[in-house]
Amino acid sequence: MDKILRINMGDKNGPKASEGPLGDYAGLGGRGMTSAIISKEVPPLCHPLGKDNKLVIAPGLLSGSHAAQSGRASVGCKSPLTGGIKEANVGGQGAQVLARLGYAAIVLEGKPGDDTLYKVVIKKDGVEITPENSLKMMGNYDLVDKLKEEYGDKVACISIGPAGEMKMAAASIAFTNMEQRPTRHAGRGGVGAVMGAKGVKVIILDDTGMPTRSPKDPEKFKAANKAFVQGLKKHPITGEGLPAFGTNILTNVINEAGALPTHNFKTGRFDGAGNISGETQSEIMKARGGMVAHGCHKGCVIRCSGIYNDKDGNYITKRPEYETVWAHGGNCGIDDMDAIAELDRMDDDYGLDTIEMGATIGVAMEAGLAKFGDAQAAINLLKDVGKGTPLGRILGSGAAVTGKVFGVERVPVVKGQALPAYDPRSVQGMGVTYATSTMGADHTAGYAVTANILNVGGSVDPLKPEGQVELSRNLQIATAAIDATGMCLFIAFAILDQPETFNALVDMIGAFTGQDLTADDVTELGKNILSFERDFNSRAGFSAKDDRLPDFFKAEALPPHNVIFEVKDEDLDQVYNW
Amino acid sequence: MDKILRINMGDKNGPKASEGPLGDYAGLGGRGMTSAIISKEVPPLCHPLGKDNKLVIAPGLLSGSHAAQSGRASVGCKSPLTGGIKEANVGGQGAQVLARLGYAAIVLEGKPGDDTLYKVVIKKDGVEITPENSLKMMGNYDLVDKLKEEYGDKVACISIGPAGEMKMAAASIAFTNMEQRPTRHAGRGGVGAVMGAKGVKVIILDDTGMPTRSPKDPEKFKAANKAFVQGLKKHPITGEGLPAFGTNILTNVINEAGALPTHNFKTGRFDGAGNISGETQSEIMKARGGMVAHGCHKGCVIRCSGIYNDKDGNYITKRPEYETVWAHGGNCGIDDMDAIAELDRMDDDYGLDTIEMGATIGVAMEAGLAKFGDAQAAINLLKDVGKGTPLGRILGSGAAVTGKVFGVERVPVVKGQALPAYDPRSVQGMGVTYATSTMGADHTAGYAVTANILNVGGSVDPLKPEGQVELSRNLQIATAAIDATGMCLFIAFAILDQPETFNALVDMIGAFTGQDLTADDVTELGKNILSFERDFNSRAGFSAKDDRLPDFFKAEALPPHNVIFEVKDEDLDQVYNW
Repeated sequence: MDKILRINMGDKNGPKASEGPLGDYAGLGGRGMTSAIISKEVPPLCHPLGKDNKLVIAPGLLSGSHAAQSGRASVGCKSPLTGGIKEANVGGQGAQVLARLGYAAIVLEGKPGDDTLYKVVIKKDGVEITPENSLKMMGNYDLVDKLKEEYGDKVACISIGPAGEMKMAAASIAFTNMEQRPTRHAGRGGVGAVMGAKGVKVIILDDTGMPTRSPKDPEKFKAANKAFVQGLKKHPITGEGLPAFGTNILTNVINEAGALPTHNFKTGRFDGAGNISGETQSEIMKARGGMVAHGCHKGCVIRCSGIYNDKDGNYITKRPEYETVWAHGGNCGIDDMDAIAELDRMDDDYGLDTIEMGATIGVAMEAGLAKFGDAQAAINLLKDVGKGTPLGRILGSGAAVTGKVFGVERVPVVKGQALPAYDPRSVQGMGVTYATSTMGADHTAGYAVTANILNVGGSVDPLKPEGQVELSRNLQIATAAIDATGMCLFIAFAILDQPETFNALVDMIGAFTGQDLTADDVTELGKNILSFERDFNSRAGFSAKDDRLPDFFKAEALPPHNVIFEVKDEDLDQVYNW
Repeated sequence: MDKILRINMGDKNGPKASEGPLGDYAGLGGRGMTSAIISKEVPPLCHPLGKDNKLVIAPGLLSGSHAAQSGRASVGCKSPLTGGIKEANVGGQGAQVLARLGYAAIVLEGKPGDDTLYKVVIKKDGVEITPENSLKMMGNYDLVDKLKEEYGDKVACISIGPAGEMKMAAASIAFTNMEQRPTRHAGRGGVGAVMGAKGVKVIILDDTGMPTRSPKDPEKFKAANKAFVQGLKKHPITGEGLPAFGTNILTNVINEAGALPTHNFKTGRFDGAGNISGETQSEIMKARGGMVAHGCHKGCVIRCSGIYNDKDGNYITKRPEYETVWAHGGNCGIDDMDAIAELDRMDDDYGLDTIEMGATIGVAMEAGLAKFGDAQAAINLLKDVGKGTPLGRILGSGAAVTGKVFGVERVPVVKGQALPAYDPRSVQGMGVTYATSTMGADHTAGYAVTANILNVGGSVDPLKPEGQVELSRNLQIATAAIDATGMCLFIAFAILDQPETFNALVDMIGAFTGQDLTADDVTELGKNILSFERDFNSRAGFSAKDDRLPDFFKAEALPPHNVIFEVKDEDLDQVYNW
């Protein structure tokens, strides 16, 4: 991982690949790498779909090694959805394979002069870029099936569906999982539209002949990894809850807490929650011969993923995640697990962010385009997106644009990006993260559900403003650092609660890189990344006024607790004051 | 004009009108009044379609008097199009009648709890607000015809068409002209959507029994008005050009200057310009028994309006203005005057800003939805807007949203509002105004075409950056002041060139209000208004980064002069540094 691959899609002689050393970017990985490159190289006021934007795909610092959970990649660009910097984090096989190929980043630059669609193949021996218009408007599933025939089932694919080709602001980038299915997505912020604007349909990564990456201090690394894995297995969430029920273990928990945004953020409890909870989901999956406890990439010991089959036992989709179940479920008043699985499959196939699409359909329902609870109507709306009808184009542009187009006032977005599955009125720490994250509303940016609801890493009353700014700040710093390592964010549960697991992680990174790391170094890394991002956003025109929740969270009390979001603006302005 | 009428559309017992004294707003008129109320009373981060936004309609300081050209009203709100403060300026009869009724402003506040549509009737004896759902989705022409039957042809109507009811961000508010036709529009910034959100379809103003407003010093006023009118008649633009050819006298002038944005701002000259020039237009109008040289309100001596008939001599629309002829014409590659007149009529009937719609159709053509030059396709697209189909909803949301939804990179907007009919690369002073105006891209905010092209008020090379900031700054200050008086902006040609005409205006205002005014007072007034507006925008989250033209004006050289926009960012930041 000592080189950067740059592909200039706008070269006058056609797309051109070149490799270079890390230079200024040495020592960076994942989100640290993507945000540094975007912040330094992309003009903040450029058009997100223009030649000056760049799409950066970077494995984490530990990706491609034997470190458990190190299979996350970061995808960065100026976001077509928010207009600010974006890092979309993704699992699957891509990070590991890319890291083993030796690339600390792939950077797609420039823009083709016409609408030719390209395929990029990266192997040990070099890079091949070929026009492949036959792939146009192909769904991710068909695309990956077709490529499997040609390249075998060991390669990893990074691809866009029709949504990315249509440059929709809700378009994702799909990463294949261990079974070479396009189920893991760099979902948020419209990164797929930027890949579409670059004219790249798919990047095929083949690491044949490349070794697993070796640590500088193998013995120390092995010991630290062992302790780290033990910590993950010991913690009730990473060791029991997530393997048994996946992320959807949260539906019952968050619903119980009165924080499950229902009917476009009108109440915090959903009557149908029991029908779509993780517990119900796992039962359905087992009964139909699906798989529970499945890793999205090699080296995962948490295994929160799974396989969701239809009634006849045929594969439909991976286990729909909690955010997806909420977005297409409670948020739209839908409690039909099979309908949600179908929507999840469609999102993955078209290449769409499930959070943005669920929130958008909620806004469309608010606008009267469909009734809350009407699963078939939701499926039909999503089909429109895949087809690119005018209505589909609106919805594919996300919740903010949909609200604008239909004159809807209650639109749950920050910086143009839809809020995820925790109402900020009853999880006020999440409200602080949504409001202030450099990413727009993003639960992963500082997951205050930990101390607000799960009593992980401490305990802060979720219904009150006190302590939320500090909580969110610390989590945002820690998260930025974790996102640089290539580690799955779910390790946070264990490292927040178990000092020895945190120390094992720090030791593991130190043993791998040969540095003598401390906890303070990790904090410093997180702050640096946030500073890059914040600086970019400021130069892109963002101000404190963009660090706010929509009005209605401060005006409408949320049942059942009948609370409004109470963190003061001046306190929100202290999040980055460290 | 010593009272303000407030109508709370959200009162729990139904809409409620109340009158009050001017208070803090004493001495303000037009844009001075609207921007002061919005800046002081509207929370800058509120949703433009929510209960906290206000719609302010204010006649100018001299409206309702015998002062020539004093028939302009200002319509203010937080704009659904830009998210910033908005003043849309409009002719027709409304300002005069409203002023004679004694109101310095009507303020629509709050928001009804349901979608009932209301009619507001304002007479000498009081205000009546009644539900009138039978008017739903009625076009402005049918609406006004229907009201004429009920209220006679002396009342003035202020109304929205279907676009405003659908809360489209390109929706205008129509003011009837002297023949009670809904041809004069507060066009820009989506003010019609705010009126729609307030649930008000139409305001009927009946000034029966109310006298013309009297000046404090009648003799001095009369003399000053006489000198002022003489000045207007003497100047070649206001005395000859505008009466003979209307504002469309500019098509040949701007095309010749290489500044007529053609095919969505790709070139500065349009081959078909001769077919849609003011000269050609006037010939067509005369040949068909239309009217050339027609005032939009009583007391107009410039008379730049007119009547455009079809081939059979039947009324189609008022004389399409230059901006409209450009927007639906050259910008879309259309050189068919009848098609442009039809588009103008449709915009007026649906209640849409012709500039925004023409620019939007240009972006739609860029996206491939229709071919440049295809007039029928443009008409069909506009029909979609009137119907509110999904495609129509997109287009009715304006150029910025249309560009976002269809993934178009070349979108000519500033602060979300479409650029008008002068390419900022070949009229660089206009570029400064577009970039820095508090209103978003707006030619009327500081009409640098004067010194850049027309040699009015001096001469500044239009193709070079030098001198443009100062030019735009001075014009923006002067314009804000003029917009407060109720004076038609076209008086600027005469007062910029003829000191005695400027002095006559100052004397006239002084004689009317009883103040001892100087030119410095006028400048101070303009600066105050801009400061209100700029402060609101800053609190709404706007920063220097919003005072920029889209990238492509700095990257693509415009034929025939092959120039890019060259005014530096740091110079743009000096516009408000006075």
